[in-house]
Amino acid sequence: MHHEMVFFQEKHKPLEMVSSLGVVLIVLLFLLSSVAEAFPCAVNGIPLVRNISGLPQDSYGREGLSHITVTGSVLHGMKEIEVWLQTFAPGSRTPIHRHSCEEVFVVLSGSGTLYLASNSYVKYPGTPQEYPIFSNSTFYIPVNDVHQVWNSNQHEDLQMLVIISRPPVKVFIYEDWSVPHTAAKLKFPYYWDEECLKMTPPSAKDEL
Amino acid sequence: MHHEMVFFQEKHKPLEMVSSLGVVLIVLLFLLSSVAEAFPCAVNGIPLVRNISGLPQDSYGREGLSHITVTGSVLHGMKEIEVWLQTFAPGSRTPIHRHSCEEVFVVLSGSGTLYLASNSYVKYPGTPQEYPIFSNSTFYIPVNDVHQVWNSNQHEDLQMLVIISRPPVKVFIYEDWSVPHTAAKLKFPYYWDEECLKMTPPSAKDEL
Repeated sequence: MHHEMVFFQEKHKPLEMVSSLGVVLIVLLFLLSSVAEAFPCAVNGIPLVRNISGLPQDSYGREGLSHITVTGSVLHGMKEIEVWLQTFAPGSRTPIHRHSCEEVFVVLSGSGTLYLASNSYVKYPGTPQEYPIFSNSTFYIPVNDVHQVWNSNQHEDLQMLVIISRPPVKVFIYEDWSVPHTAAKLKFPYYWDEECLKMTPPSAKDEL
Repeated sequence: MHHEMVFFQEKHKPLEMVSSLGVVLIVLLFLLSSVAEAFPCAVNGIPLVRNISGLPQDSYGREGLSHITVTGSVLHGMKEIEVWLQTFAPGSRTPIHRHSCEEVFVVLSGSGTLYLASNSYVKYPGTPQEYPIFSNSTFYIPVNDVHQVWNSNQHEDLQMLVIISRPPVKVFIYEDWSVPHTAAKLKFPYYWDEECLKMTPPSAKDEL
């Protein structure tokens, strides 16, 4: 044991060198972290534990929306789940849309209406069912069901955590509820993935 | 068209019968909804929008834990994502464990410590890295990394939304950080899935 300890000491650098090496490392780490912050598409160099309040927040051109990708495919290298924090101002809403993934909502505050067309018609969504949603409620959207979430409360923001599988999301948008499924328009990359994801057509299995 | 309408009227039951049928249907629906509430493993008959405060909450025999399956595989038929709301009393913690799925945490309140052994050793986890976690923070656990979440705050509950992929979760538990990966003990079904899920050995691909 004693022999091993001496060996260890002999391999050690003198104190001065260790100290300068430390300074160099700190500077390098600082530079790396600046790069990660400046470049919003970095998968590496992002801290494991992150303050959600400090994450990029944007409307992505959609009136009344505030979107944060809490943990994502494009930003953080997730392969199976992606989490968003979304706030909808009174009157604002998602498009009428479908996607080939599971989706779970947890309403943190506010209230609104979920419109869901559960494949009542084969060729187009048809009149959706209306479900009131409220603070501390949860709901999920079955794979490929056409839906829309609307902040129908005129006085309060609607804030939700949204969880999807199979990221990044590939969204088919409907102008209204009578548009045939085959005429829904693919939006990919979706608003918040546009900056970091180049256009790649999704595979055929994402079609209906 | 006229002919069809007459035909429709002829097939219609008299008003009294329709009315009694309505009563029978209402009673049946009421009975069905009671069954869904009384039987915690029902996939059907559970409302699409649910109040999280009204969902079953239990410690499942683990001191200091309060667990709610917000949306789950066993309870709600989810195939790709499962969401839990968990509260850890001061000093309480998860076991040291790993699972073959992605996992995202969103800390709603409180603070604590994440211990994570990122495969620094091949045969056993080894001393984990410590990360402080705090209210409004998020972190994720890479697939199969051994980890433990600990409410190390003596004064406050730690409340988190936990999201996993590939439900129901198959957990390998380590007595301590020096237990070889091959000696970690499979706990399946996991605590909250036990009541509704019979023992089925997971497939070989869930092993390391």
